[in-house]
Amino acid sequence: MTPQYHVLGIGNAIVDVLSHAEDAFIKENGLDKGIMKLIEADEATALYDKMGPGVEISGGSAANTIVGVASLGGRGAFIGKVCDDQLGEVFRHDIRAAGVAFDSTPVKGQPPTARCLILVTPDAQRTMNTFLGACVELGPEDVDPELVANAEITYLEGYLWDRPKAKEAFVKAAGLAHDAGRRVSLTLSDPFCVDRHRDSFRELIDGHIDILFANEAEILSLYQVDSLDQALDAVRGECGLAVVTRSGKGSIVLEGTQVFEVPAEPIAKVEDTTGAGDLYAAGFLHGVAEGKHPAECARRGAIAAAEVISHFGARPEVSLADLVGQKLAAE
Amino acid sequence: MTPQYHVLGIGNAIVDVLSHAEDAFIKENGLDKGIMKLIEADEATALYDKMGPGVEISGGSAANTIVGVASLGGRGAFIGKVCDDQLGEVFRHDIRAAGVAFDSTPVKGQPPTARCLILVTPDAQRTMNTFLGACVELGPEDVDPELVANAEITYLEGYLWDRPKAKEAFVKAAGLAHDAGRRVSLTLSDPFCVDRHRDSFRELIDGHIDILFANEAEILSLYQVDSLDQALDAVRGECGLAVVTRSGKGSIVLEGTQVFEVPAEPIAKVEDTTGAGDLYAAGFLHGVAEGKHPAECARRGAIAAAEVISHFGARPEVSLADLVGQKLAAE
Repeated sequence: MTPQYHVLGIGNAIVDVLSHAEDAFIKENGLDKGIMKLIEADEATALYDKMGPGVEISGGSAANTIVGVASLGGRGAFIGKVCDDQLGEVFRHDIRAAGVAFDSTPVKGQPPTARCLILVTPDAQRTMNTFLGACVELGPEDVDPELVANAEITYLEGYLWDRPKAKEAFVKAAGLAHDAGRRVSLTLSDPFCVDRHRDSFRELIDGHIDILFANEAEILSLYQVDSLDQALDAVRGECGLAVVTRSGKGSIVLEGTQVFEVPAEPIAKVEDTTGAGDLYAAGFLHGVAEGKHPAECARRGAIAAAEVISHFGARPEVSLADLVGQKLAAE
Repeated sequence: MTPQYHVLGIGNAIVDVLSHAEDAFIKENGLDKGIMKLIEADEATALYDKMGPGVEISGGSAANTIVGVASLGGRGAFIGKVCDDQLGEVFRHDIRAAGVAFDSTPVKGQPPTARCLILVTPDAQRTMNTFLGACVELGPEDVDPELVANAEITYLEGYLWDRPKAKEAFVKAAGLAHDAGRRVSLTLSDPFCVDRHRDSFRELIDGHIDILFANEAEILSLYQVDSLDQALDAVRGECGLAVVTRSGKGSIVLEGTQVFEVPAEPIAKVEDTTGAGDLYAAGFLHGVAEGKHPAECARRGAIAAAEVISHFGARPEVSLADLVGQKLAAE
């Protein structure tokens, strides 16, 4: 039977607050450019007070990916935890309006819906400061076995590893997916996230992950090696497909002993790199679910990523199905 | 004594929810393209459920204008009513982060902060659906006499006329401003708003407004005439300065018997017309407060309006002071 969903994402349900900032602001506030940092409620309030005017756009890494899958014409579902507050309503509306099935029960009253304060510097890099709020309440009880069994691929964001209950949800979902003969995919999310959870990530990847996404910094951190070649040697054979994204240098896909290198999609101007990895994963996973060759999956990922970095925010602004259709037809 | 503020705005404190929509959506939902419609809470929920994914950006007509004044390097203050909820926090943060003084007391718990569901069609026109929420609580008690006396110009949005208490606040502010020897400015806001309040607007304009802003549809509706020339004849002499904005055709300023016509600022692509009139008023009023010639005020308005229609949302994305400085230096 054809599964009901191409991809089910499990991740943090976050509303992004995007604001332009100068490099001096990043420095003055002791932030690390390009990195996701977890912050508590009081830190979030203090940073928000100092930030410039913002724009609110639904975000969350795996959520962005699933919205991308839907925009590509795929069938997507998402599991994540919001509060029954205004930002929770915004998150729920946006993901459903994008065509994604989303039925996770919100928490009542407290903690509030998660937000990520994102500072976009003139070089288009984003520095993310996440107050997890309601996301910390996500647990194994939120993972619906039927939903997992009905998805070709269950996709998990590494950020979930930051909270014990979310990690349990993660492990439960991976087990259920494999029991149903489905595939499990993981993104390492962030080099600091890898640093926080290196051993348990390596344990998980060794045999439990079918499709792994990492960027260069993440894969180097995972295996504590100095060169990309060493990292590729280390990951080879650990997962069915291992994908290393390299920003402007394109991506590398390993499948068994085979290696595919695919260039990045050129664009006129990078506005905001928020969501680049998330949308790459969307293009890639939708391709896998459609049975495409790994090199074509990577090409689809590159096109989807290029669209999202050409504007503010981490969700596509045009139909990715149309965009990918046009690009591939022209090749 | 130099007044502390160039412009004090009094208006609805609204968070905009912007979404792309096809013309068919506007038609199917019985909306009038380009018009602001007031909706109740249940209508807002029903429309929101049907809309595509959104982006939240602080808005409100006079609030946008005052943020524009601040971006131009002016000193601005704003009076408007939010709730102490998440969207109210967003509104307060954004306007203060833009450099505007904003100290209106929020309402507690209910009604929620106002939102405007804005549908942007492929022709860049915006169709606005406003749930006024907490704005209906704005009343004369929110008008601080000291603040009004300390502003060179008090600027009022016509939309306030839709609620009796807000209208009282409006009339009180106009009286206080004149008592302090300051100027009062009004924008007619929308042709349907004029239609709802024609007689009382005409009564007010006849002698109580120093600087009037209207677009063609609004001024024709105000005087119930068929041609722009008839409308200009009708308004001549009623206000110190009367400004008619004409979108791509530029603007016309009447000062006594003098007429100044100023072209629109050309731009590569109109993305979203939301805020065009608001930012025109910002450029014009800041010029007036700085003692500039009416034609230069109109030119400043045209430059500010061009910036805001070149992107999504009704607040400037770059420093208007820099932009206007560059443009005027090149002339």
